[in-house]
Amino acid sequence: MRISELSRSSGVPTATIKYYLREGLLPAGRRTSATQAQYDEKHLDRLRLIRALLGPGRLSIAEIGDVLAVVDDPPESPLDLLGRASHILGRTAVDQDETPRSERSEENARDRPGRAEADALVERLGWTINDDTPAMEDLAAALTAIDQAQLTLIPAGVEGYAEELHKLAVAELDTVPLDSPQSAVRQAVLGTILIEPLLLALRRLALEDAATRRLL
Amino acid sequence: MRISELSRSSGVPTATIKYYLREGLLPAGRRTSATQAQYDEKHLDRLRLIRALLGPGRLSIAEIGDVLAVVDDPPESPLDLLGRASHILGRTAVDQDETPRSERSEENARDRPGRAEADALVERLGWTINDDTPAMEDLAAALTAIDQAQLTLIPAGVEGYAEELHKLAVAELDTVPLDSPQSAVRQAVLGTILIEPLLLALRRLALEDAATRRLL
Repeated sequence: MRISELSRSSGVPTATIKYYLREGLLPAGRRTSATQAQYDEKHLDRLRLIRALLGPGRLSIAEIGDVLAVVDDPPESPLDLLGRASHILGRTAVDQDETPRSERSEENARDRPGRAEADALVERLGWTINDDTPAMEDLAAALTAIDQAQLTLIPAGVEGYAEELHKLAVAELDTVPLDSPQSAVRQAVLGTILIEPLLLALRRLALEDAATRRLL
Repeated sequence: MRISELSRSSGVPTATIKYYLREGLLPAGRRTSATQAQYDEKHLDRLRLIRALLGPGRLSIAEIGDVLAVVDDPPESPLDLLGRASHILGRTAVDQDETPRSERSEENARDRPGRAEADALVERLGWTINDDTPAMEDLAAALTAIDQAQLTLIPAGVEGYAEELHKLAVAELDTVPLDSPQSAVRQAVLGTILIEPLLLALRRLALEDAATRRLL
């Protein structure tokens, strides 16, 4: 199909498609003349994926490039799959010192407020986590914020949340096909990114329903 | 204490404190001369709260202003508490049409991709949700993205996530004190904002641990 049809089928404006082509997010079409190229179903699928990552996934164009690079050229073994996903997706937590994560030394990372509490929590849970997993910094920042705001937690505490999420994580991991690295990476990376907005939306709605039941 | 001590105790630079004062996030200190003012524990608490909302909560300065306004001047009845919180916190989901949420008509909102699926899901769950709750749009966008990316869900499906989150929501609501609107709003709003980064960090870590267990 031509770019105009690709635009119609995907609902993505032609100018935006050209931008994705320039940024290398979308592979070039098959040239049919100096000014025209043909696109196929693969381009349409890729466009849908980009829009999914850009929309609810809230990734930047650069982050989407990183994700697509892993999806297109997955590590040979699925072993460090989630590790790769976790690193690509590690968002920068703004905390007291306001130093971007990339400018901090590893030593600093372990002295950051909340880091000792985060390490102790993971130890209590018996989880196997890499020391330099970005989510450890996010956990430290989240624990610090909860502490600073003097928020009362549920009786089961942070462990209560952790155990529920671990159950869901095991079920999610079972959906990752291990026979093909390509589809394993795709499912793992997309699962990490696309389930997050779902969880947040469902949580807000669950709170609204629970509040209505309690207060009425 | 003077602004320099407030800065030292909170770890927030003086220039940043002055910015929060100008923006009205922090109430003015008690003037002791033309150029000096005294601050107390309340200012320190408020500063910690602002930092918690700005950091892991990832709210903008304007959003923090809205949250603090509700915390300082809560609605008379705690009835629509969560509704207020949910509206303040409704983040704009970028979706196919790229129209900011504020510029869309209500009619459009219900024709958006995924909205029918979101309505059907809430109906199946038996949840009581306001039609104009922003999280319904987020849910619609999340369902659309999962569908577009052809992501395989856990066997329990979206309902599986919804039921776990509802259990946690009921436990969370039990931590909200209903005797004082002020503390009820504070706990409800902060709980909504500050638990989200905790959940996301714990989920990534749970996935890493579950992956390690499964793959090794």
